[in-house]
Amino acid sequence: MSSGRRGQRYAIGVDFGTESGRSVLVDVTDGREIATRVYPYRNGVIDEQLPAPHEAVRLEPDWALQDPDDYIRTLQETVPRLLRETGVNPSLVIGIGIDFTSCTMLPTLRDGTPLCCLDTFRRNPHAWVKLWKHHAAQPEADRINEAAERRGEAWLKRYGGRYSSEWFFSKALQILDEAPDVYATADRLIEAADWITWQLTGVETRNECTAGYKAMWSRRDGFPSNDYFATLDQRFAHVVDEKMSRRLAPLGSRAGGLSAQAAQWTGLNQGTPVAVANVDAHVSAPAVTVTETGTLVAIMGTSTCHILLGSELEYVDGMCGVVEGGVIPGLYGYEAGQSAVGDIFAWVVANAVPPEYFYAAHSRGIDVHQVLAEAAVKLRPGESGLLALDWWNGNRSVLVDAELSGLLVGMTLATKPPEIYRALIEATAFGTRVIIDAFNKAGVAVNALVACGGLPDRNPLLMQIYADVTGYDISTGASRQAPALGSAMYGAVAAGTAAGGYDSIQEAAQRMASLSGVVYHPVAAHRAVYDMLYREYARLHDLFGRGGDNVMRTLRQIQSVVS
Amino acid sequence: MSSGRRGQRYAIGVDFGTESGRSVLVDVTDGREIATRVYPYRNGVIDEQLPAPHEAVRLEPDWALQDPDDYIRTLQETVPRLLRETGVNPSLVIGIGIDFTSCTMLPTLRDGTPLCCLDTFRRNPHAWVKLWKHHAAQPEADRINEAAERRGEAWLKRYGGRYSSEWFFSKALQILDEAPDVYATADRLIEAADWITWQLTGVETRNECTAGYKAMWSRRDGFPSNDYFATLDQRFAHVVDEKMSRRLAPLGSRAGGLSAQAAQWTGLNQGTPVAVANVDAHVSAPAVTVTETGTLVAIMGTSTCHILLGSELEYVDGMCGVVEGGVIPGLYGYEAGQSAVGDIFAWVVANAVPPEYFYAAHSRGIDVHQVLAEAAVKLRPGESGLLALDWWNGNRSVLVDAELSGLLVGMTLATKPPEIYRALIEATAFGTRVIIDAFNKAGVAVNALVACGGLPDRNPLLMQIYADVTGYDISTGASRQAPALGSAMYGAVAAGTAAGGYDSIQEAAQRMASLSGVVYHPVAAHRAVYDMLYREYARLHDLFGRGGDNVMRTLRQIQSVVS
Repeated sequence: MSSGRRGQRYAIGVDFGTESGRSVLVDVTDGREIATRVYPYRNGVIDEQLPAPHEAVRLEPDWALQDPDDYIRTLQETVPRLLRETGVNPSLVIGIGIDFTSCTMLPTLRDGTPLCCLDTFRRNPHAWVKLWKHHAAQPEADRINEAAERRGEAWLKRYGGRYSSEWFFSKALQILDEAPDVYATADRLIEAADWITWQLTGVETRNECTAGYKAMWSRRDGFPSNDYFATLDQRFAHVVDEKMSRRLAPLGSRAGGLSAQAAQWTGLNQGTPVAVANVDAHVSAPAVTVTETGTLVAIMGTSTCHILLGSELEYVDGMCGVVEGGVIPGLYGYEAGQSAVGDIFAWVVANAVPPEYFYAAHSRGIDVHQVLAEAAVKLRPGESGLLALDWWNGNRSVLVDAELSGLLVGMTLATKPPEIYRALIEATAFGTRVIIDAFNKAGVAVNALVACGGLPDRNPLLMQIYADVTGYDISTGASRQAPALGSAMYGAVAAGTAAGGYDSIQEAAQRMASLSGVVYHPVAAHRAVYDMLYREYARLHDLFGRGGDNVMRTLRQIQSVVS
Repeated sequence: MSSGRRGQRYAIGVDFGTESGRSVLVDVTDGREIATRVYPYRNGVIDEQLPAPHEAVRLEPDWALQDPDDYIRTLQETVPRLLRETGVNPSLVIGIGIDFTSCTMLPTLRDGTPLCCLDTFRRNPHAWVKLWKHHAAQPEADRINEAAERRGEAWLKRYGGRYSSEWFFSKALQILDEAPDVYATADRLIEAADWITWQLTGVETRNECTAGYKAMWSRRDGFPSNDYFATLDQRFAHVVDEKMSRRLAPLGSRAGGLSAQAAQWTGLNQGTPVAVANVDAHVSAPAVTVTETGTLVAIMGTSTCHILLGSELEYVDGMCGVVEGGVIPGLYGYEAGQSAVGDIFAWVVANAVPPEYFYAAHSRGIDVHQVLAEAAVKLRPGESGLLALDWWNGNRSVLVDAELSGLLVGMTLATKPPEIYRALIEATAFGTRVIIDAFNKAGVAVNALVACGGLPDRNPLLMQIYADVTGYDISTGASRQAPALGSAMYGAVAAGTAAGGYDSIQEAAQRMASLSGVVYHPVAAHRAVYDMLYREYARLHDLFGRGGDNVMRTLRQIQSVVS
């Protein structure tokens, strides 16, 4: 088969994001990205009203839905074009992998038909896909946590002591609470990642990654007991056996071959190997060369997700989750996160930057972020006298508290917009340092940092600040679309050596993944100042985040009373 | 003399502000403001470099100077025009009063010549007028406070336990420290208010108001002992006798008659009665009808000054000062203040409001403040989830700490500019409530509120929030130029009944002062929410302001280290 490796062969990675889906055609021999096609979802994020003709159905605040047809359309709109426009023969595409946002889940019939596609349920928001950032299941999450703590459920420790309102059983329980008819009719409750894999192969195949990070499952202990689920609601006792599955496929395995229908959608050959689905953040690690312990991968975009591999199971303060084989087979995959990063910078530009910065940007044909960054880069650490807590969207790690909010201190009449912009970048860097500290303290060593995602390429100021704040050299991934590349790599692994692919993700990473070569080194003088500022950040972090001062929660309570 | 009262007669008030001086011609019978003339100071606030041809002399940060020639030019440019344009015969102008910012002080020769007018000293910044907001004498203020505390100086309690860097002896001591030649040459160190009175009358006359509020003096105890001044610097032991005067004139008395030279400057008759000088904030109280105990006057502009009368001497936590006869003869005049109010709203508009609000303002021909206020007025109290500490320029009362800075908490990705704008208005209202609470707690009762200054007229949203937050009905003064009106009233008192004026400021207030008739009443439902928010404000106020959490001071320290 070694001859096969030298021939032309490709894999396709499909990355299902929040606003769009993208397909990338990748050369299996070296990871070169040949072409990319993006499909902006027709119905995008559904967070105000259902799509026409049901726009009269208004959604509550905190809701966020998607349309499963947008996922199918992504396949139809992107893959055939990739092939057509590159002229690549479908027979040279040896495998396909997909990754998805998560937990993004939906109720379906036994044959996979989403309930929202049925006339009976189309007007019911609970029949649609609940997107990862659907935040309306907080009461259910509270019940889940309260019951787990009361019963001393061992799995809770794997989630840093707190199960999120974003995750699978919070969303499932919200369906049961608020739409029992939808719950009763749903033969399956399933991650969208597994649903699209099912659509590609015709076979329901659930992956260990989302089960582990979002659905309380572990290889060692399986799912929690029916007794536990029964304490949440008697009708929920058998949710796993009635609506899900205890058979889960490890990452790196093959879900099946492309079905006739999916071959028609994509223009690929029927039977093309399809990898078990993955999560966008997790699949990015091998895409930026990380398949071993010790290197923290930061996937930085609107929010940041941190992935770290460890050889032992440790319980890390406030981490999002740890899953054996959840990122790389044979290792424990640790996940942590910051719930708003790029979103905060975008918030500033949209809400707190005066016209002259927009004029400057316009007249120079550059982005407002760039105008701010050019001024901010000239500031010395500590010069602005500002400090922020970066909780504009709550805190995902290590406090795990969606009720927390942003704080900015140190303003004077002389404070300028680039100073605020820089202080917010610094705050997100301090937030990352808190997470690194928690890993190191728990014995999951962080020795190096690799950044990928939308932010690092665009923002050298940000990367330098992260290096100065954390004290680590920071490398960046070579690919601007790490998730899709990682998915393509898993596609090549699903194909296997025999078909011209690889036998393991490690092998695929060696051949197909690379770093950009750009490394940001900490500047000693900056580190010293940031060490001082970090002490202040850490103290405020604990004061407002750990119950010393409850002002953020009280403000939310007052807000909910008056609204 | 009753016949004289019915005839045409006028008084002129001259208000020396920060950026300009203004003269107002007032009808003595009813307080009607006949005409106003404003002179924008040629050299404005001198805070970067000395005026040409000495622009090579750069000033340190925190410096703020003025040019005494601008005060003379104010007289020359405004008073003759008032007379000419109204056609009022100078003989009908029965008196003239002046008010000034304070502590604004300068060194002069024995004849009143400012040292900065001498060639020898013109390039020396210490020879110029130190404006009230000159903040470079903090080290001297620290020494003054430290020595006063150590010696248990009784006068310190009259200043809420802290003597400000803005005040007379801090500035005088800075001259001695940094420019001993200027100090040695200065025959007189004098408030600009008294200097301009001197220029008007040819006789040095110092007022009790500035002596009491800014220079440690009280009617009961006089100035501190020479011993005390000697502990600050041996050369400072006899500062009062060498550079000042122990003879002080009470408010409402006559400083003298207009000199021949001043008659030439102004076009008024030589000998026209000139009142003893006053401070802009303090003179506003009678101008808005307040000459009795129990009504707090809030002079609201870029900053806010609070004036309250009491019949007894009480020591109020963190007040700026209490002076017997300092506002109205026979009563104790209490002063408190908020060091940034309108300045904060202006800061937001200049630094943190995005273009669409400017477009909206421009297209509708209105102010950006108005666009923000229109959106902010629709918000319910507590709805934004935001809370701020209004210390963008430190805290003047009750914490008396210039090192404090602003804080904003509760931001989410959904936070909008009008919410921030409203939160900052609310924060300044909470700041006012803290001051009212301190007065009530100390036994100086606040029963009602009257607002004047630049802000109240322009901003009904702000006034309603102040009523809702404090729980008091708030009236507003009728005049938009209360200080100048108050000065004209004192001019009429300097003239006395015999000359067609009044014998007391109380009598003048009854005839010449009035309220607008607009009263803002607290809304019960708003009060309830603001009571909740105020508890949070008060807790954060004490936490960050009273040493529980030193982050603001630490950020300043780090800032000074890196700058």
